[in-house]
Amino acid sequence: MTANINASAQAIKFPQTKIVTVQPQSGPESIESFYDEYLAIPGILEQIILDTNSDAFILACWGDPGIEAAREITSKPVVGIAEASLYVANMLAAKWSVVTTLHRVRDMVEKTIQKTGLTDRCASVRTTKLSVLDTEQDRLATLDVLTAASRLAINHDGAEAICLGCAGMSGLEQQLEERLGVPVIDAVAAAVKMAESLVSLGKTTSKQLTYRLPERKVIKQYEEHFQAQNLYP
Amino acid sequence: MTANINASAQAIKFPQTKIVTVQPQSGPESIESFYDEYLAIPGILEQIILDTNSDAFILACWGDPGIEAAREITSKPVVGIAEASLYVANMLAAKWSVVTTLHRVRDMVEKTIQKTGLTDRCASVRTTKLSVLDTEQDRLATLDVLTAASRLAINHDGAEAICLGCAGMSGLEQQLEERLGVPVIDAVAAAVKMAESLVSLGKTTSKQLTYRLPERKVIKQYEEHFQAQNLYP
Amino acid sequence: MTANINASAQAIKFPQTKIVTVQPQSGPESIESFYDEYLAIPGILEQIILDTNSDAFILACWGDPGIEAAREITSKPVVGIAEASLYVANMLAAKWSVVTTLHRVRDMVEKTIQKTGLTDRCASVRTTKLSVLDTEQDRLATLDVLTAASRLAINHDGAEAICLGCAGMSGLEQQLEERLGVPVIDAVAAAVKMAESLVSLGKTTSKQLTYRLPERKVIKQYEEHFQAQNLYP
Amino acid sequence: MTANINASAQAIKFPQTKIVTVQPQSGPESIESFYDEYLAIPGILEQIILDTNSDAFILACWGDPGIEAAREITSKPVVGIAEASLYVANMLAAKWSVVTTLHRVRDMVEKTIQKTGLTDRCASVRTTKLSVLDTEQDRLATLDVLTAASRLAINHDGAEAICLGCAGMSGLEQQLEERLGVPVIDAVAAAVKMAESLVSLGKTTSKQLTYRLPERKVIKQYEEHFQAQNLYP
Amino acid sequence: MTANINASAQAIKFPQTKIVTVQPQSGPESIESFYDEYLAIPGILEQIILDTNSDAFILACWGDPGIEAAREITSKPVVGIAEASLYVANMLAAKWSVVTTLHRVRDMVEKTIQKTGLTDRCASVRTTKLSVLDTEQDRLATLDVLTAASRLAINHDGAEAICLGCAGMSGLEQQLEERLGVPVIDAVAAAVKMAESLVSLGKTTSKQLTYRLPERKVIKQYEEHFQAQNLYP
Amino acid sequence: MTANINASAQAIKFPQTKIVTVQPQSGPESIESFYDEYLAIPGILEQIILDTNSDAFILACWGDPGIEAAREITSKPVVGIAEASLYVANMLAAKWSVVTTLHRVRDMVEKTIQKTGLTDRCASVRTTKLSVLDTEQDRLATLDVLTAASRLAINHDGAEAICLGCAGMSGLEQQLEERLGVPVIDAVAAAVKMAESLVSLGKTTSKQLTYRLPERKVIKQYEEHFQAQNLYP
Repeated sequence: MTANINASAQAIKFPQTKIVTVQPQSGPESIESFYDEYLAIPGILEQIILDTNSDAFILACWGDPGIEAAREITSKPVVGIAEASLYVANMLAAKWSVVTTLHRVRDMVEKTIQKTGLTDRCASVRTTKLSVLDTEQDRLATLDVLTAASRLAINHDGAEAICLGCAGMSGLEQQLEERLGVPVIDAVAAAVKMAESLVSLGKTTSKQLTYRLPERKVIKQYEEHFQAQNLYP
Repeated sequence: MTANINASAQAIKFPQTKIVTVQPQSGPESIESFYDEYLAIPGILEQIILDTNSDAFILACWGDPGIEAAREITSKPVVGIAEASLYVANMLAAKWSVVTTLHRVRDMVEKTIQKTGLTDRCASVRTTKLSVLDTEQDRLATLDVLTAASRLAINHDGAEAICLGCAGMSGLEQQLEERLGVPVIDAVAAAVKMAESLVSLGKTTSKQLTYRLPERKVIKQYEEHFQAQNLYP
Repeated sequence: MTANINASAQAIKFPQTKIVTVQPQSGPESIESFYDEYLAIPGILEQIILDTNSDAFILACWGDPGIEAAREITSKPVVGIAEASLYVANMLAAKWSVVTTLHRVRDMVEKTIQKTGLTDRCASVRTTKLSVLDTEQDRLATLDVLTAASRLAINHDGAEAICLGCAGMSGLEQQLEERLGVPVIDAVAAAVKMAESLVSLGKTTSKQLTYRLPERKVIKQYEEHFQAQNLYP
Repeated sequence: MTANINASAQAIKFPQTKIVTVQPQSGPESIESFYDEYLAIPGILEQIILDTNSDAFILACWGDPGIEAAREITSKPVVGIAEASLYVANMLAAKWSVVTTLHRVRDMVEKTIQKTGLTDRCASVRTTKLSVLDTEQDRLATLDVLTAASRLAINHDGAEAICLGCAGMSGLEQQLEERLGVPVIDAVAAAVKMAESLVSLGKTTSKQLTYRLPERKVIKQYEEHFQAQNLYP
Repeated sequence: MTANINASAQAIKFPQTKIVTVQPQSGPESIESFYDEYLAIPGILEQIILDTNSDAFILACWGDPGIEAAREITSKPVVGIAEASLYVANMLAAKWSVVTTLHRVRDMVEKTIQKTGLTDRCASVRTTKLSVLDTEQDRLATLDVLTAASRLAINHDGAEAICLGCAGMSGLEQQLEERLGVPVIDAVAAAVKMAESLVSLGKTTSKQLTYRLPERKVIKQYEEHFQAQNLYP
Repeated sequence: MTANINASAQAIKFPQTKIVTVQPQSGPESIESFYDEYLAIPGILEQIILDTNSDAFILACWGDPGIEAAREITSKPVVGIAEASLYVANMLAAKWSVVTTLHRVRDMVEKTIQKTGLTDRCASVRTTKLSVLDTEQDRLATLDVLTAASRLAINHDGAEAICLGCAGMSGLEQQLEERLGVPVIDAVAAAVKMAESLVSLGKTTSKQLTYRLPERKVIKQYEEHFQAQNLYP
């Protein structure tokens, strides 16, 4: 999956951008439950802590896992692929739907949309029988399932664009768009553009209140680089 | 703090209830940022995984950290102290405020209230200069700060009851209530009652969709007991 | 119906609790319209006024009729069975539905949920052809109707738990739960637990603003004990 | 107060309209609490039941007490003075505030606005120290209090029009408007216009679902004319 | 269409009212897109600017196009037929739907309802295959399409009254009401009543903030009478 | 002002981007009322109609005037500077405020935020005494007024970033950011990045429903190029 995400990101970036795709050292193979999400977050944050070169960070899982914490530990811009895809959809369509993996993630997806603040513009969340890893294995079958779910979103829920709600679906947007006739947004590509935008604008995350550096304290059983005091310059 | 929480819980429980208070093996000393919260969650979930005796679980941090995941990994009831305190407040007052620690947690607290679904009944979130650990050190000074913030909530925001938004404030509710003349809700005590209620009702968490057991998969760098397949009976 | 409610309440209470079930002296046999509800309220309030022994009160009709007034006339906790069932559902499921009587009560039920403040967590209100009294007469037929409506809520609306939206349905929760495989909440039982909780917590209703004792004035054609001045200590 | 309401209504009606102002036979002198409101409703409904001549009904208390039940028991239009004043305000100003009596009614007023569905257009609810009966006794003092509260609404909350939130304030709108320089809406006058409108349009209340005639049943301790079966033609 | 609107307005007005129906000098034949709406607005505003006799203005297109600007350029009351119909529906039914023209206007209609502030009371927006001009050509076919859409609104969405969402449908409300058995509101008629009401109440638009006269400035390519300075007395 | 906007846009664009800044042939000098906005829209749409070279369009007025119509008449991406600035703010701060011109535009600004769908993330709208043209004349005085309003937003309303709510303020963001210590977003720059992003992603506006080409019809008094039939390929 990381290779797939990397391919999408490299393909869409501006020439002057350099993208490095990394995988957390710890956590689940894929995120399909709150449990997966919460166990993935320390590993995601660790990658940001250890990186001293990048100008911005992209969280390449559709739930934008741990994004508030990521914004606390660095002042460099952090972009979630979910929020990025919603902004792009919002500029292309009056109403859009998110089409995604297993039925069980519906609540997780709704919470992500609500966190981003765009619930009012969302036509529906359409879940499927696809696991995250399924989306990688049989691309054609995945395309068929996404086509069916998207058609329900368009015809039944009033969607006018489709957000692909999983990084594993990256690369299918073109074919799906041809089948459906409405914009289909790959969240990874959208996030690359948003990250490039924020860097180009020279903006950094607000340290005014919510996203200040974490308070200094002992964090048991976490390595030295996780200790809050070491995050301070 | 754990001792303080334990004292409050033991004092309020019904005679037939047995309460065991445990501290996660990993994570921060206190939760005052999203970073703290996310790093605390694996350790919190671990305590639930390792416990095979309890009939219900209470998450004794006001943000109800990781509660959705906790509900996935067990079918026994899981109660967050934040949600419990809001339900109690809702039965005692037309509008209530949450009075809590550092100003930076405002957004975190608002998200917790929204997750519980009770934003419309909340008069305000009043943050203070108190760190979580401050609340333990000088109880009288803490009481004074809480009194001042609560009076603003009552007189300026229209609050008719006060939810103490931090487990570390447990034990101060009685004195604060005397000073203010409105109900002051200790979240730990409220959660003990909710947990006793759910056990008495014989209810278990819905495994219909959102809170099903996590999907089976490899979770890198986490010990055996965290592996999803081991959560299955 | 009162006998049925009493049986449910007695069965679920903690040993140390004593429950007295009373019927208002005036008002309709059952509540299935706003007209019924409003004509029932004076009789409900009267029972609270006349009772000097109880430590808390439960309004055993799902609309929580007159609950704001009940909270004005006593400082002892007052619990509505509707709100109690929603809090319990909220702790067991990400989304829940209310399954209830006649189609005409849909708006009344939605207003009750909104008053409690939990509209965002409600998947749907599913009404049926059952009158309140029907629910008493043929329990098996009632069970079948509730099963069908609940399945629609689960499969079509995304409910993960079911709140029984009528006191008359009390006692069917166990069988319905077995049929459906999701938590089914009996509102009467939930309210008993909430009332026990509030008494155990030693809390009383806020007299700060909304729920102060009614202003002193003449109330024409109502007996002496209804006169506001007699409510004052 | 009834005389005052009558004067306002007679003064504003179209020539062809005939208005009869009646007082319920039972209930409180004024409505300043939920208790007052609920005890007033049976008497209000009775007046509608007993009236066979009118083409429409106006509930002349700002909380529109029992309006849903009133709409059940007759198919003739029923207008609440609160809702009428909000519609008028909505046509005159981008945002408006409600200025009203005792501080304790804030929650009641907010619920009335929410029931009408116009919460988003409301700038604020400004309560005062005035009881309903105060508004009758010293008109000049009342005017001063309303002026002060309205100025806060305009300058602090962004109100661009004022709704007088109590029938007892009827008759003061002209003087207040002169002082404030923004539209001031007398709810009684607004309701007369809405009732005239509905009659002129030849419309009747929907009997489709929510506002059907109450279900037939025994209503204990209420006189014959209250019995639901007698409401049927 | 203007003739049709005029006929409806003349038929419903009070005897003492004089109605003059005018057509803008510029703009599209009908409004079925945001493009149509925005190109119609200058011509609509021009009619108000040029009129020095009327006591109030009605915007006879269901989107209430340019109504905020209309309220800026005159202090005389301005009523939109959309908002008027929603207020009337709100007094007759617990929930109502808007049944209207082409599917593409759904978003436009939803925005109009939201602008009026009544989104919470709306059961659904039901669009059809009818263009605005279709509604004029074959009245019986139009009636059939509206009947079908309204039945979906009633049976599927829970509507208890129907608002006709296009001025071109004016005159069909009686027949549709007979077919459906629920109140059907002609927006033109509703607006006549609201305008008569505001004039009778002697109210003018608030000039406090939002609806002040436009700031003085040059408006290129618009005739003299459009220039803001000429709007000042 | 156009020169100022052009300078900001040229300064921030990627090297490969070419930006052409045009002024509508008709309409007001600046937009400070709904009247100004509506009279500006035909001229704005005309520029899009007449342009056959550009890959995307930016509406450089903070209200995103006529953006829905702009999206109808072209399939090339259209970006509003208001929405663009809100997306950028949303990625940098938990809550943000819009600081803008004259007090009278408050309602217009709130409607723009609501149309974009981000009301929940907005801390406040802070208006000032500045007219649009003022912002051009005395840049230092403008900076001082914006600083004062922003500080209120930060200290009183909880804003953690500031969106400059007027294109005329473009160029002041750097100095304001230095004074305030929180991110200040120039809407013009943000929109350039969003337009570059959409073009790079190869996306076009959805023609599924809301943003289809306008229906063919006569548009009186508008030139040939405005006629809907001429918008079709």
